[in-house]
Amino acid sequence: MNQARLRIGVVAPASRMSPDTADKVIALASRLYGERAPEIVFHPQCLATSGHFAGDDATRAAALVEVANDPAVDAVWFARGGYGSNRIAEAVLPRLNEAARAKTYLGYSDIGFLLAGLYGAGFTGATHGPVAQEIQREGGEAAIARALAWLVDRDPAALEPHAATTPKTVAFNITVLSQLLGTPLQPDLTDHVLMLEEVSEAMYRIDRSLFHITSNPAIRRVAGIRLGRCSAIPDNEPDFGMDAEAVARFWCERSGIEWLGRADIGHDVGNRVVVFGGG
Amino acid sequence: MNQARLRIGVVAPASRMSPDTADKVIALASRLYGERAPEIVFHPQCLATSGHFAGDDATRAAALVEVANDPAVDAVWFARGGYGSNRIAEAVLPRLNEAARAKTYLGYSDIGFLLAGLYGAGFTGATHGPVAQEIQREGGEAAIARALAWLVDRDPAALEPHAATTPKTVAFNITVLSQLLGTPLQPDLTDHVLMLEEVSEAMYRIDRSLFHITSNPAIRRVAGIRLGRCSAIPDNEPDFGMDAEAVARFWCERSGIEWLGRADIGHDVGNRVVVFGGG
Repeated sequence: MNQARLRIGVVAPASRMSPDTADKVIALASRLYGERAPEIVFHPQCLATSGHFAGDDATRAAALVEVANDPAVDAVWFARGGYGSNRIAEAVLPRLNEAARAKTYLGYSDIGFLLAGLYGAGFTGATHGPVAQEIQREGGEAAIARALAWLVDRDPAALEPHAATTPKTVAFNITVLSQLLGTPLQPDLTDHVLMLEEVSEAMYRIDRSLFHITSNPAIRRVAGIRLGRCSAIPDNEPDFGMDAEAVARFWCERSGIEWLGRADIGHDVGNRVVVFGGG
Repeated sequence: MNQARLRIGVVAPASRMSPDTADKVIALASRLYGERAPEIVFHPQCLATSGHFAGDDATRAAALVEVANDPAVDAVWFARGGYGSNRIAEAVLPRLNEAARAKTYLGYSDIGFLLAGLYGAGFTGATHGPVAQEIQREGGEAAIARALAWLVDRDPAALEPHAATTPKTVAFNITVLSQLLGTPLQPDLTDHVLMLEEVSEAMYRIDRSLFHITSNPAIRRVAGIRLGRCSAIPDNEPDFGMDAEAVARFWCERSGIEWLGRADIGHDVGNRVVVFGGG
């Protein structure tokens, strides 16, 4: 039955993965799926180091291209966010082949630079969802189980509930979307529900990024915005006077973008899956 | 001789000014210029409070429009940066009259949102330079003296040395420029020397913002980039592996933008004056 097992290739286009992540994730997959467990192949590049990154730009790009282009790999799973996928996204895209085009690409946060570029290039498998490193969080097995449920069985329970019933959806970290606006990575999001989440940013920064996002003429063509969780917000001095939802509602009203309510995504073990463009 | 005295109007489109700033600045101006001292009129709005801001958006916008449109005011000086001028910049521009069009507007950092909008709207007086709040810094009198030397006498010694001899120049805080890219506030910087500075941002954030700026097709038409001081950079974990100049050189090389060297600007008392578009 080994031939029928899903094969997942893991690479780290941004920050380095923790060394024991691979063993923990593979053990969990085996416990959850037994003989059906997917084969999860962690590329050695996940543990490479170059300053801030999991290897230098060329090393990270080469690993991603290698795994994405491999016809024997069914899905590309990102080891971790952090910082750095923006540095390779544009260079990687023209190097991807037809085998790459058919795959699922699962990750979020900094990985949004890549998901944006893939989606803009017409790939249908760009997917927001837990990264392998999530296993290191308290309660992180739930996030990994959700990622695997999507990758192995396309389990609808893994999906963000609104995304499951919305024709066109995308999900981004607020700062990451802000930092790709006006670059070749910005995808056309006309008529999409835009889900946004944030972590570890002061309220004034969230406000400024939402100004930036909602002031962009192309972004104003979205069908509406849903706000995921904004967690670990550092104190603002003086107090900002509005919470994340109030700020998101404010910028929706100011920009004429429809406020659609909350989304079940965020930098936590509850983070749900959103397929870019819809399933 | 009072009729000949320069009249400077001070407003705070972002964060609130410290209460004793007005007295300190006026005393210094008197000491420096005696009878020639400019009349510096601090709008009461400088001390207004609304959460993070020097009054709510409507209050801040009204004060700026009032002072800018007043034919008896020769120059608009910004009390302080901080955060918030992005929230009013677009709404203020269409409310400005012909008297507003002839004035100098002096400030920097968060004020860059306004300077960008004014410059994009064809105003010739948008000027990067010290804000009034600078008087609170250690050695801050030098910054205020430089601001006044420019406003009162157009003293060439106040100018950033390269800007003084370059036909077209602009200066921005890195984060602020990044956060206005792709919005209606983004000015056409074709053939301009772009001077950039930063404060209190981690190296990975500086790297990400410079990715963002140098990946923008319109920004790639600048004549080149000069880097001002990047100060108070918080520790990066792990160490980023490059300093601010190395990062700026990297993104210039990657994007094909010419690296022109350093600029004498920054979030400090040595911050020099740059007239948007040239003097």
